[in-house]
This record gives sequence, C-alpha cells and structure tokens, in this order.
Amino acid sequence: MLITDLRSDTVTKPTPEMLQAMFAAPVGDDVYGEDPTINVLEEKAAAMFGMEAGLFCPSGTMTNQIAIKVHTQPLTEVICDVSAHIYQYEGGGISFNSGASMALVHGVRGKMTPAQVEAHVRPLDNVHFPETKLVALENTCNRGGGNYYTLEEIAAIAEVCQRHSLALHLDGARVFNALVASGDDAKAYGSYFDSISVCLSKGLGAPVGSVLLGSKEFIKRSRRVRKVLGGGMRQAGYLAAACIYALDNNVERLQEDHRKAREIEQVLLQQDYVEDVFSVETNIVIFRLNDRYTDAAFVEALAKEGIKAVSFGPQMVRFVTHLDISEEMLQHTLKTLKTLSKQEVSV
Amino acid sequence: MLITDLRSDTVTKPTPEMLQAMFAAPVGDDVYGEDPTINVLEEKAAAMFGMEAGLFCPSGTMTNQIAIKVHTQPLTEVICDVSAHIYQYEGGGISFNSGASMALVHGVRGKMTPAQVEAHVRPLDNVHFPETKLVALENTCNRGGGNYYTLEEIAAIAEVCQRHSLALHLDGARVFNALVASGDDAKAYGSYFDSISVCLSKGLGAPVGSVLLGSKEFIKRSRRVRKVLGGGMRQAGYLAAACIYALDNNVERLQEDHRKAREIEQVLLQQDYVEDVFSVETNIVIFRLNDRYTDAAFVEALAKEGIKAVSFGPQMVRFVTHLDISEEMLQHTLKTLKTLSKQEVSV
Amino acid sequence: MLITDLRSDTVTKPTPEMLQAMFAAPVGDDVYGEDPTINVLEEKAAAMFGMEAGLFCPSGTMTNQIAIKVHTQPLTEVICDVSAHIYQYEGGGISFNSGASMALVHGVRGKMTPAQVEAHVRPLDNVHFPETKLVALENTCNRGGGNYYTLEEIAAIAEVCQRHSLALHLDGARVFNALVASGDDAKAYGSYFDSISVCLSKGLGAPVGSVLLGSKEFIKRSRRVRKVLGGGMRQAGYLAAACIYALDNNVERLQEDHRKAREIEQVLLQQDYVEDVFSVETNIVIFRLNDRYTDAAFVEALAKEGIKAVSFGPQMVRFVTHLDISEEMLQHTLKTLKTLSKQEVSV
Amino acid sequence: MLITDLRSDTVTKPTPEMLQAMFAAPVGDDVYGEDPTINVLEEKAAAMFGMEAGLFCPSGTMTNQIAIKVHTQPLTEVICDVSAHIYQYEGGGISFNSGASMALVHGVRGKMTPAQVEAHVRPLDNVHFPETKLVALENTCNRGGGNYYTLEEIAAIAEVCQRHSLALHLDGARVFNALVASGDDAKAYGSYFDSISVCLSKGLGAPVGSVLLGSKEFIKRSRRVRKVLGGGMRQAGYLAAACIYALDNNVERLQEDHRKAREIEQVLLQQDYVEDVFSVETNIVIFRLNDRYTDAAFVEALAKEGIKAVSFGPQMVRFVTHLDISEEMLQHTLKTLKTLSKQEVSV
Repeated sequence: MLITDLRSDTVTKPTPEMLQAMFAAPVGDDVYGEDPTINVLEEKAAAMFGMEAGLFCPSGTMTNQIAIKVHTQPLTEVICDVSAHIYQYEGGGISFNSGASMALVHGVRGKMTPAQVEAHVRPLDNVHFPETKLVALENTCNRGGGNYYTLEEIAAIAEVCQRHSLALHLDGARVFNALVASGDDAKAYGSYFDSISVCLSKGLGAPVGSVLLGSKEFIKRSRRVRKVLGGGMRQAGYLAAACIYALDNNVERLQEDHRKAREIEQVLLQQDYVEDVFSVETNIVIFRLNDRYTDAAFVEALAKEGIKAVSFGPQMVRFVTHLDISEEMLQHTLKTLKTLSKQEVSV
Repeated sequence: MLITDLRSDTVTKPTPEMLQAMFAAPVGDDVYGEDPTINVLEEKAAAMFGMEAGLFCPSGTMTNQIAIKVHTQPLTEVICDVSAHIYQYEGGGISFNSGASMALVHGVRGKMTPAQVEAHVRPLDNVHFPETKLVALENTCNRGGGNYYTLEEIAAIAEVCQRHSLALHLDGARVFNALVASGDDAKAYGSYFDSISVCLSKGLGAPVGSVLLGSKEFIKRSRRVRKVLGGGMRQAGYLAAACIYALDNNVERLQEDHRKAREIEQVLLQQDYVEDVFSVETNIVIFRLNDRYTDAAFVEALAKEGIKAVSFGPQMVRFVTHLDISEEMLQHTLKTLKTLSKQEVSV
Repeated sequence: MLITDLRSDTVTKPTPEMLQAMFAAPVGDDVYGEDPTINVLEEKAAAMFGMEAGLFCPSGTMTNQIAIKVHTQPLTEVICDVSAHIYQYEGGGISFNSGASMALVHGVRGKMTPAQVEAHVRPLDNVHFPETKLVALENTCNRGGGNYYTLEEIAAIAEVCQRHSLALHLDGARVFNALVASGDDAKAYGSYFDSISVCLSKGLGAPVGSVLLGSKEFIKRSRRVRKVLGGGMRQAGYLAAACIYALDNNVERLQEDHRKAREIEQVLLQQDYVEDVFSVETNIVIFRLNDRYTDAAFVEALAKEGIKAVSFGPQMVRFVTHLDISEEMLQHTLKTLKTLSKQEVSV
Repeated sequence: MLITDLRSDTVTKPTPEMLQAMFAAPVGDDVYGEDPTINVLEEKAAAMFGMEAGLFCPSGTMTNQIAIKVHTQPLTEVICDVSAHIYQYEGGGISFNSGASMALVHGVRGKMTPAQVEAHVRPLDNVHFPETKLVALENTCNRGGGNYYTLEEIAAIAEVCQRHSLALHLDGARVFNALVASGDDAKAYGSYFDSISVCLSKGLGAPVGSVLLGSKEFIKRSRRVRKVLGGGMRQAGYLAAACIYALDNNVERLQEDHRKAREIEQVLLQQDYVEDVFSVETNIVIFRLNDRYTDAAFVEALAKEGIKAVSFGPQMVRFVTHLDISEEMLQHTLKTLKTLSKQEVSV
C-alpha cells in the first residue's frame, strides 16, 4: 500500500543527492572548532539572515532553549503566544532550562499584536513581578495552521521590544515557508531579531539539525549553554552537509508544498464532515470536524487508506505537506478525502 | 489628617492585647523544634483545617512556594488561574524555586471550573509535554475581587484532581474571609486539599506569618524546603503568639470588614465616575472607572483626603477593608467617594 | 537541674531589656518599605560595616543564599572552603537556589589562602567549565572552631578577587566575634567585601534576623530575590528592634564568651579522654576524643549533668559559649569535664 | 608534515568501511520511535551491558547529565571524585541541569574507595543537608590517567550504594578501554550500575553519539529529559549506524591503543625532562615535567614536530592514543620525545 505520511514535515528522508553530499563532507572535531563543514553551515546560515554568527545544534528545541537561556535569567519572564512551540511542545523547558517565568498571550492563530505584547510587559522595579526580558515569535505558526508574520508585523513588535529593552527571538522552525510565501527578505530578519533558530530538518529535508543565529557575543554564550545541555557533537559535519545541501536546493521548492496544501484545503472545504479549515498560507492544513467524525475516528479512517495524519485536539486534524509527498500521494489523499464524505459513519 | 489605609489588609498593626500575648510567649530555638509557641500554632492551625501537621513560615509567598516545590519537580506543570497570586505576585517563583511549567486558566474572576482544570491536564507519556502534577486554587480570589469557591465547588475540582492523580493546593491568603462569608466548615477543607497555606498577617491582623498545612510526610519535606529557602527562624514564638491570638479573636469579626466593603460598594454604584464594581463578597472592592478619572488621578484625589488605595490596572482601583479601618474611617471614605462625583475633573 | 546549653549560640533568648525594646518598637508594612524600625536597622548595620545599604531577612541562610544568587547565575561557580556553612549546612542551596556550581577548597580549619583561591579560578572562554564568579569567606569559621581571618588576610584574598573580577562575599554569622577578638575595624570590611551577611541571632542574642549588606544596586536586586524566596515580612519591626538593641548592647560583651571558651579549652587540655583541641580563638570549642569515649557516649554523659553539646563528626564534640551561659553554668561545665576523666568508661 | 593528533581519542574520523555502513543505514523519525537503526543500536548496547533499554544521544555529556537528572532532584546530592568529568568538564551541569549539590571525594587518581563513598553519605532527616541520592564513577578515569575500577571494586561500591539506597551511575566515556584492559565482563556491569553512559565517539571511532543504558522505566524518564534538553534528533540513524559498526569492529583493537600508550610511557620514563608518569593502564598517558620545560613550552615543542598534545595542568601533559594513530605516527612520537631530551631549553 502507498503510504502517505502527512503527520509532519519532520519525517522526510534524504534524497540520494543529499546523501551523496553528506558522505563527501570533510569533518573534524567540532568541540575544538575543527569541523569545516559545520563552520561553513554556520557562516552560510548567518549570512542568509543578516546575522553575525551561527551555532549548529541537534534540534530546534535545543536552539530555542539555548536562546531563551542566553536572553533570560531566573527572575525574568518570556512573552510568547500560548500556542508557541517553546511553551507547548518543549517539555516545559522555559522553566526547566532557564528558570524563567512566562507570560502567555492569546493571539489569533498564534500571532500576537504589538499591543498584546506591550500589555504583558511587567512594570519595572516591583519585587512582586519577574522582569520581562524576552519576546519570542514563531514563524510560521505551527498551531496557528502555518500562517505567518510579515516583515512589517515583525517590525512593529520589534519596536515594542526596543522601547522596553527586550530581546526578540524567532523560532524559525518553518521560517523558510514564511519567507517563500511572503516574499520577504531573509536578510532583513537580522535587523529585527536578536536571535533566530533555523530548522533544517523540517520542510528543507535535512535529516537532523538546526542552527542558532545571533551576534558573535550571543553565539559565544550560546556555545557554553550548548555544552552544558550536552549538544556539543564531534564529527557532525555529515549532518551539516545535508543542511547545506538543503539550503542550496530545497528552499524554493517549498512552493510546491504550499500548492499541495491549498489543494487539500479546497477539497476539504467541499466535504460535509468539515466544520471549518484554518485558511492555508503555507504547508500546514488544520481543520475542524463536525459531529460526523471524531478526530480519532477520522485519523483511523485515513490510516486504512495508508494516509497518516495527527489528531490536533478535540475534533481537530492536521496535515503537513513536504518534499516526500509526491503528486501521486496528493491525488490519493484528495480522492480519499472525498470518499470519506460519502461513507456511512458510526462514531 | 485622619489616614484611612485601604491599600491592603496587610497593613494592620497589633492591638495592645495582641502585643501582650506576644510579649508573654515562651520561646525556644525552632530549628531544634524547641519553640513551644510555634509548636502550639502549628498544631492548632492543622486541627482547624482537619490536617495532620503545620509549618510556620515568614510569609504566605513562602508557604505557597514551598507547597509548589514539594508537590512538583522540574519537568512537571502547575494548573492555576491566570490571576492567581502564585503566578502574578510571587516574582515568577513557580519557575524560579521549582523549575515547573505552568498552565494558566482564564477563569471568571479568578475561579476555574472543573472542566477548565481538566482541559489543561497534559496527556501522559508524551515527551513533548511536562507532566501535570498540581492544581492550585486561591480562596478568596484577590484579583477576582474577594469572591470565593464554595466547598461544593472545591469538591468538584478535587474530584478532577483525584481522577488524574494531581495534588490540590490552596493559597489561603484570605481563607478565613471565605469561610466566614460562606459559612463553610474549615475542617472539611482538609479532606479536599493536599496542602493549605493559611496567612495570619492579612485580615486576621498578626504582624508576620503564615502556616503551611498538610500530611506529616508533606510537612517533613516542606521543612527541608523551608530550610533551603532560608525560612527557618530561631525564637520566632513571639510572632507565632500573635498568630494564635488572631485565630482565637479575629476570625468572626471579619464579618465587620465584609459589611464595610459592601457599604463602599453601595456608594460606588451610585457614583457617576464608576463604570462597574465587582460584586462584593468579602473584604475587597474592585471597581472600574469610566473616563471621568484615570486610575492614577482617582487614587491621587483620594490621597488628598487621607485615603490610600491602589491602582489595580488601567481604570481599575482596589479597596481592602480590615480591622484597622474604624467606623469613622468608613464614613469619611463614603463621604469622600460621594464628593468626588461632584468635582470638576481635569484628567 | 541546671541546664547548660552549649549546643549553639543560636539558643539565646531575649533579656527583659531586649524584650522591652521589641515591644516599644514602631512598625509598618515592610513590603511597602514602611517599617521604620527595620529601616533604622538596615541603615545602622550598613553604616557599621561601611556599606551603602542593608536588607533585613529572617535568617542567615537567607542572607547568604540571596547574596550567592545575586552574585552568580547558572553556568557560574562559587569558590569556598569545603567546611563553609553555605556548602555544608544550607541544604544544598547553592545548587538549589542559584544553579551554580561550586569549587571546594581544602583550607586549614576553614580558612583558604589567597593561592588556594586563585588555583580554583576556572580558565576563561572554555565551554567545559563554569565561569568563576564568587568567592565566599566565613568569619569566624564555624567548623574551623571559631578561628578567623584577619583584615590583612581578607585584603589578600580580595586582591585575588579583584584581579579575576570575582565578587567577594562574607558569611558573617559570627563576624562580631571575629571583630571583637581581632580588634579589626568593621568599617574596613566594606572596602573588601561586595556583600556581607551579618547574623544578629547568634552571639548577639536577638531572637530572629540577619541583615544583608552591599551596594544600593546589590540590595535592590537582593530585595527581588528575598521576595521570590518568601522572605518579605510585614510588621517585622519587633524583630528588628531586638537586633538594634543587640548591636547597641551585646557586641563588646562577646569577650566574656571568648574568655569562657578559653577556660573550657584549658580544662579540656588536661583531661585524659581528649586527643586534641582546636586552639580557641573566639566562642567555639571543638575537640577530638580519644578512644575512651565515642562522641555519642560523651554527649550523653554530659547530658546526664544537664550539659547540652553536639557531636561534630566521629570523635568530635563542639561547645559554643554565649550570653545565656552564666558563670555558674561555666563552673558546672568545668567541674563536669574534670569528673568525666575519672569515670569508668564502657563505650 | 605528518600530523600526529594525540590530544584526545575524540578526534578520530570514520574509516571508509564505517562510512559505508552509515551510508547504507535505514532511517526514520526517531521522535516517533521510527528510526530502525537507532532502535537496533539501543537494543544492542543494552544487551552488551546486561541492561533493559538504551537511549541514543548526541554526546556523552548529555547521557551523563540525563542520568544525573533522572536519579536526583533539587535538594539532593551526588557523590563523585573531584576529578570526575561530570564535575570538571560538563560546564557545571550537575547544578545547572539538576539543581543537585555535589560531594567531592579526593580519591587516588580519580578512584574512590567504598569507605570514602560511605563517609560522604549525608545523615538522613536533617534539614541542614541535601539528601544523598547518587554515586557516579568514571571508567576509565580520564584525569586519573586512564586507570580503571575492576568489577570487584565496582561491586564493593555498589554494596555501599545498596545499603544507603543510592543509585550508582557509570560515566563510561572509555568503558571499553577498561573492559578490554581488565578482561571484565560487560554484562556483569548491568548488575551493579543503575545507569551507564557508553560513549561511541572516543576510542571506538564513531563520529557522534553516546548511549544511555538503564531499566525500561529509567529510559522512559530519560527520554523526557532528552527532549527538554533538545537532544531528540530526527533521522539520526546515520550516526547510529557508525556506532553499531564501532561496537562490531573496534572494541578488541583498543589493545593496540593501549600497547602504543605503554610504549610512549616507556620512552618518557627515560627522559631527563620527565618528573614522573602516571602508570599507563589503557590509552591515556599523563606525565609531569620537571623544570626543564613548562607544560606550555613542551606542548609547543611537540607542535613544531606535528605532534598535538594538551597541557593538563601546571607541568602536566596528556597524550591519548586512538585508532587514527598509525605505527608511523607512534615511531615519530617516540623519536621526538627522545630528541626533546637533548635540546637546549630556554623556558
């Protein structure tokens, strides 16, 4: 049976060309700073985003958690949307790794307004409150359904941060999806954010790895935190080579993923079991089922046809398109979604 | 000028009778468990709430923070209302002292429903999430305007906790106000809560001190945490004596404070500068100003008449009645509130 | 039976004069900065030690732990002697409250040399190591047997700290014993230490309280930490009044305690059950038993005569003299110590 | 110039055969538990050491830090030798990641005796002390010069742990060197240790990776900690494949490294600039220089001949042999060491 894995864009596997790039890579001991491939990746990613320096890490959770740790201290607070990955899916890491408190904004589909951010800044010089230190955005917004902040919106929040001397971090788990969809300039990001976590193992298709970007001083401090978290790897240039290949070859093609997601959206909007669909902006499709299916029943019905998806809360289901979703898989999915409308359902 | 301090019920000073009790108290070194007055207070408070044991601490922040620490570990999460004192006014202590994450419920005037609590319990065995361990209530709700959970409502939340193996903590900063207003039985609290923080230095009028209540094992572990936080005091029986006096003499009279708060509410409801008033249930009066005054201007106008109040957010003002508010002060306050309606206002 | 409590100088109880001072004290809500007696104490203690500001806390553990927290951050390290109170007796607080690592020096009777301190400073810019941030001394040294650093010795260590940009903290649990014995000038301390914890509830006889001293900025940050630890008290001026009384009346008389300790030492040196005695410099007497007694058996033998002492490790026993040890108690102790030499011992 | 890198056994690079194994490995998303190669590695390593389960991590620092975190909680303490990697070279991670205190034993060349371990166990039920929870050994001892605990010595310490209900962890950064040198049975380790960190990227030659071993329950909890530290990788099977290859092919050959280290030792013992050499037991050679060279000057002199070594403290130098040190490199090293004896030295 054809397996169509729409659970996440993290499931992609390297193509032969990427594999070839990996195993041709020169490597060295990165703890001594001697892995040439990692060095190239760090510089390349920094340059793309107009930042001074980069740090290669085994996961986006680590790049995010390091950034939070460097920007905060215990007795301080982080402002983020309540749906943010750093709060919802990193194991409670803000408290665990940084001992920082968090102010959770209820934005629209994961996006906070500048006014909302400002309303959550704590008054200074009052011992009852932690000191606000950091604002974190996620672009695109995973739980928001792949929607994104434009550069203009980012600039407005950056202005609030500047006024209150707050650092601004970007969880760029899917930042290239945002850039490709918006047409915004990556280099401009560097002028608004104090740190950016760029993930290469989602839509870009590298097997492992994220890069944390910031100033030289920030990355120097981040390197210390990476060490204490256990993220310092030795000859990890093989992984970095895949990331370089992904940056060189897999960015523009994200438009394909977005197109496929929109096609799924269009079909969903016509089905009688769908309550509504978060309007698709990139490669994520989140929709709500009416009472014809529970989310568990729907996911199970898809599984019978070889289509993997994830339940995303009560009556909610999420699809994510990516480079391992072929045209054939897309058509199979569209057909299956239509078929499910006609079925007798016993929930 | 007559000073009417309605900022908080924390400002009360001991009466001569309470001072006399303090002065006469036998003391000893409590680090060795040898302060007889502290021992009496701990047992007395525990017995009142149907708990096994108690621990005397210098503040309610400490009793709350110790309880959170003993009930949780890093990688776990606390559920509380977003307005809870433990989250809003304890300096970010949940993260700082316990490294625990927090799930913030948006209840009505600080009160969560059992369904809201249950919706925030994290799924088990998923590495992305911290493990939910503790639910914390605050009775009465300070930011809610002194409203309270009844025993029946507490029981319903306790049932959710039991079903999910969660501990249930009470921040009883003003628990006696809740008990006096509801007529509920303090002893019954012991069957629903795993720990209770009872504050003696608010409405009850003791100068310093809170008692943490729980099982013998819980209090044994709490004693270790108190030590590491620096809360172990030596001959603190003088403070404990005031607390004992307060428990013996100042509980029932809280009805007086509630009556005074209601009188203020009645007057406020008739003033043209008031947008609305949180319906008064105990000794806290929170009201919203319309555009005739900003909160800062209103607090300043009161100050000119010797009345101290606190701004409680944009356009919000809070009064708290307590045992140092005499009938004369009340009348002066009521008269002033009426006068302010008639003034020319230039904001 | 006459009870002679030589376990610690923490067991002292207020004299009637001190009690009188306590209950005559004006008080206020210290969380609002309105307790006049606390304000006087903080200023007085700061002035004595040539420091800018002070902060009243419920215990010396809290003043120490706050200082460590303000001087360090996670990923940094504290250098102290392995016998230091902050490491040995504060519940593991350096790690718990500050997340800081510790470099433990094996000094002589608790005293480190400048060379030892310097040898433990970590190399900079190496991600394998925490960053050294703080050196902490204890004066007098409790586990060292009440010996002390002179101002000259302090100056030499301060010079190392300055050279490596390290903060220098003093755990002054018994700093007045050191000052009275050495004749050193308290004001000079302020020029060497970045923070001093002064305990008033040991030899000085106040029931509860320590004061943390430092720069205005340091104390401002310390106030935040005190809040999050739960050390903010309301009308604690009663306790502060006892501390003021102690500073005014009980410093010079520490010489009496020292004299009594030396008399005990002289008698011990002549007993056949004594292996050796840490030469007495202040009010602490630590001695080692030979095999005629175990420490437990010796402490029990003393207890039968109403004399309380503490076992201080295998074959070690500690006596502490203080203002509640009368001349009669001293004579009883000396006599008993002689009697124990003559007894048949069955260990 | 021939470069002979004796700085560490971490610098090894994969052989073509190992690369081939990596290239051919099936992979999947390990966060979903779907990477078959990682699953094989985890099971294989667990089976080798008689343990139930394993967890693949990006570094030995991470496996150690996870183990410490799972075995301890804040308010507890870890006993280890003062020279242990977990204390000396993991960035202060015991405090940072676990908030645990540490009791540092001064063993002989990094090895603690059972009596030393026992002497550092804290008394129970005393609030002044953290609670001892974990003992950690390192085999071989890096700073001890590659010496090791035999199974018999491990058993004796395990007995102390059992008696005091302490967990026993092994930092097995170079555990295969210990096993090959001692002839001890790896499977027997599983009966003494509660957790073992096995590093594959040192002498075994894999580019990246360590495996943490323990009971199923322990590994389940470890997986949560790995997530929050950011150690969860996606398609990391490529790295795991190299580790499997290393376990299958590179264990027995460690004897070659040991033989080379001994040859270096023999030459060093005859040189006039050598004060003494830690007797060589495995692949590490640590020696002390007399005043003919400083460690910096000696390391520089070697560098001129293409030989890399590290200064290991004042007058101390360390060599580590490994699979990338050829016979030619060895002979060049031996010759150079002899030559340095004859040189005029100006320090």
